[in-house]
Amino acid sequence: MPKQEEKLGVKVKKSDDFSEWYNEVVIKAELAEHSPIKGFMVIKPRGYSIWEKIQAYLDKNIKKLGVRNAYFPLLIPEKFFKKEAEHAKGFAPELAWVVEKEEGERYAIRPTSETIMYDSYSKWIRSWRDLPLRVNQWCNVLRWEVKQTKLFLRTREFLWQEGHCVYETEEECEKEARLYLNEYKKVCEELLAIPVIEGEKTDKERFAGAKRTYTLEALMPDGKALQMGTSHNLGQNFAKAFNIRFLGRDEHIKIPWQNSWGVSTRMIGAMVMTHSDDKGLVLPPKVAPTQIIIVPIYSNENKEKILKKAEEIKSKLKNYEVELDDRDGYSPGWKFNEWELKGVPLRIEIGPKDIEKRQVVLARRDANEKEAVPVSQVDKKVKEALEHIQNNLFEKAKKFLKENLVFAESWKDFVKHLKDRKLVNAPFCGGVECEDYIKDKTNGATSRLIPFGQPKTLGKCVHCGKEAKFMVIFGKAY
Amino acid sequence: MPKQEEKLGVKVKKSDDFSEWYNEVVIKAELAEHSPIKGFMVIKPRGYSIWEKIQAYLDKNIKKLGVRNAYFPLLIPEKFFKKEAEHAKGFAPELAWVVEKEEGERYAIRPTSETIMYDSYSKWIRSWRDLPLRVNQWCNVLRWEVKQTKLFLRTREFLWQEGHCVYETEEECEKEARLYLNEYKKVCEELLAIPVIEGEKTDKERFAGAKRTYTLEALMPDGKALQMGTSHNLGQNFAKAFNIRFLGRDEHIKIPWQNSWGVSTRMIGAMVMTHSDDKGLVLPPKVAPTQIIIVPIYSNENKEKILKKAEEIKSKLKNYEVELDDRDGYSPGWKFNEWELKGVPLRIEIGPKDIEKRQVVLARRDANEKEAVPVSQVDKKVKEALEHIQNNLFEKAKKFLKENLVFAESWKDFVKHLKDRKLVNAPFCGGVECEDYIKDKTNGATSRLIPFGQPKTLGKCVHCGKEAKFMVIFGKAY
Repeated sequence: MPKQEEKLGVKVKKSDDFSEWYNEVVIKAELAEHSPIKGFMVIKPRGYSIWEKIQAYLDKNIKKLGVRNAYFPLLIPEKFFKKEAEHAKGFAPELAWVVEKEEGERYAIRPTSETIMYDSYSKWIRSWRDLPLRVNQWCNVLRWEVKQTKLFLRTREFLWQEGHCVYETEEECEKEARLYLNEYKKVCEELLAIPVIEGEKTDKERFAGAKRTYTLEALMPDGKALQMGTSHNLGQNFAKAFNIRFLGRDEHIKIPWQNSWGVSTRMIGAMVMTHSDDKGLVLPPKVAPTQIIIVPIYSNENKEKILKKAEEIKSKLKNYEVELDDRDGYSPGWKFNEWELKGVPLRIEIGPKDIEKRQVVLARRDANEKEAVPVSQVDKKVKEALEHIQNNLFEKAKKFLKENLVFAESWKDFVKHLKDRKLVNAPFCGGVECEDYIKDKTNGATSRLIPFGQPKTLGKCVHCGKEAKFMVIFGKAY
Repeated sequence: MPKQEEKLGVKVKKSDDFSEWYNEVVIKAELAEHSPIKGFMVIKPRGYSIWEKIQAYLDKNIKKLGVRNAYFPLLIPEKFFKKEAEHAKGFAPELAWVVEKEEGERYAIRPTSETIMYDSYSKWIRSWRDLPLRVNQWCNVLRWEVKQTKLFLRTREFLWQEGHCVYETEEECEKEARLYLNEYKKVCEELLAIPVIEGEKTDKERFAGAKRTYTLEALMPDGKALQMGTSHNLGQNFAKAFNIRFLGRDEHIKIPWQNSWGVSTRMIGAMVMTHSDDKGLVLPPKVAPTQIIIVPIYSNENKEKILKKAEEIKSKLKNYEVELDDRDGYSPGWKFNEWELKGVPLRIEIGPKDIEKRQVVLARRDANEKEAVPVSQVDKKVKEALEHIQNNLFEKAKKFLKENLVFAESWKDFVKHLKDRKLVNAPFCGGVECEDYIKDKTNGATSRLIPFGQPKTLGKCVHCGKEAKFMVIFGKAY
């Protein structure tokens, strides 16, 4: 028998210690846990199932755009990293090495696969007929981070997809780099119910080796920005370094254009932070491993009758991920708490009085609301409730983002807003030195992105007072 | 313009040099290629797509059996390997090591995940209520093989799934170990059209650390057996080594029972060998990335009309993976060869005469057959043809297996059959020494399996003449 007295649920409040609250939610909702190997995590079935939903959604959409999946080696020869100088420099501190026994050559476990893929591309691509080449891989990557581990957000190994495309023209390359970013936006907003801001990275924050990096940024409840996905217009940098050439339509040898783009399991962490509460995990129905939990309320006398009804309700809902919690030895209240902790979006309660009234009770995880609905309308009401939950989570998050994204034109306002944990949109000169200074003087705020849809007139840089180049959103970041 | 004179297709005949023929088919059909890192391969989109079909089929079926996916770390601490002595010994020569910078601890890149998973299981499992625990992961593994690389069949890194389950009782554990083997059989036979023999491994060939290893063996056209998948009843060996315990229904602490089971990308290699021919790849329709290729036959005069009709046919077949090859500058014959090389199961030809007669021509990849069918019946005829191809490939392979699996009771017959590249079913004493001797005297034949469905009387061991313990199938193996 389980100890019913044992306090289920999260001990720390979201408002008291956000970081510890997050860690507890992830662990107690059984999404992931720390591995005995420092910096690594185990993604448990309930967490992995969310990743599978993200994969299925995104994979289907990118295939419609002509992307095909492939798989490239885990290990990358040291010499490959040396071909693109900036890229090599950017990743050098994070590499884990394997030394080959016979020949002593060093291989890095992939932190990203540009180099190994483009070495192949240089052999695959001969003429314009081979372009565009659009290849993606779903895989694990390793980055030997030294900062403290945070489940899903900062681990030495994580799962991701990396798309790597090659084009005849700069225009196509640029257009599609933004198209994939838009696919990521759909994952964030439509699936995970997380509103995002789209834009471009500044010179300082750009991907190592890229010409332009596009990004999606989300705002977490603690006021920190979290990068949800990036898409890089690589220009011709890697094509030159890896000697990728093609015979153009005009019979001349040309250098193609490339982009690469990726999202990872960190999206799951962002989703947990955004929606969850002091009772535990809150999940958007579209990614919940269990969407509906049926909890029968019975005594020894009416057990059989009530379980039969519960089974009947379950069979009406077979288009959903539905479970019936018929475990003996746990009180209904204990079960309520457990499934709330685990983030099941909708609970259906069935007790003796409900049977009399030919009804069930729907309880929404996202709001403290219960509704009695006739058994005959269960299917319809469940569908509505799940849609409401999905929308409600998104609307709440949108409201939060709106309230916490502010403008600043003066240095004073800028500093104050950052202190108040806001995302601050400010005119900026674009200078790397200016950006370093801001980071230094604001206890670590960085430029998150140059948002799309820039105003016509910009004014002066919020820090140095020179002519602003663009509006930039600054904030603390994960 | 492509050089039409250039010889497409495979240069080596299957009957002349099987090994080189196989390598050529895999590369020319664009399934995979050798990587610049010795012993590694790149799985190209056409090859990876087959893996995706295998994954989708198997994943769905094991989920129905209650298995859930998860993800465990790529790196395994050295000390974990030391906990189960046989397992450690079995994998020691094949490990690739990463040395942690700060503390100098050594981590192996996973060759299989028993140790890292069972360390977690020891924390996850508390009571009989937590059992059965059925977890699977799809991932990459590394085994630093020293033998020569063979695409899909023997590479240092490959993709696989590994299922790891824990049970209260020995009976359940044993029953399910065989259930998963049966799921693998369905993949082989129903999807890949490869007939398999089911059985158990002898002591000598058993998985390092297992109590019993079940296996599926297929016979390749060169007379060599290929292991398609294995399922291990691990008994309590690992549970003891990793201290996995549970509180039983009777309130006593108990040691659970475990099984583990896996199939890998090597299945793709077996499929290529089994069905392909001198013209290139032959694929069962159920796993073909392109199931139907439409090749229009046109001149400048009728191009528009014929392409329009071809598009119309294509739109009728949207339930299939269908492509229309409307590339200019390639002759129909060249296109036929290319798609035959790439293993497209069914070709649809449409020329001016076909349009007159309101028909199209279906050409099957697996047989030298063409059939004119009325446009009005295309959908039905295509369905039939694809089913025929799938069945025909399976029947042909079954016939080959039947003809090449023979019995031997005398040593003389045994040796002769092995020389003739047969699989030989013979009474065997079960002794490891006897097995070593056989291997030595037959130029490398090993015991493949103890087939299920043993006869009642067995006779004497084909080699040593002692009382036989079971019938064993011997053969050369990949």
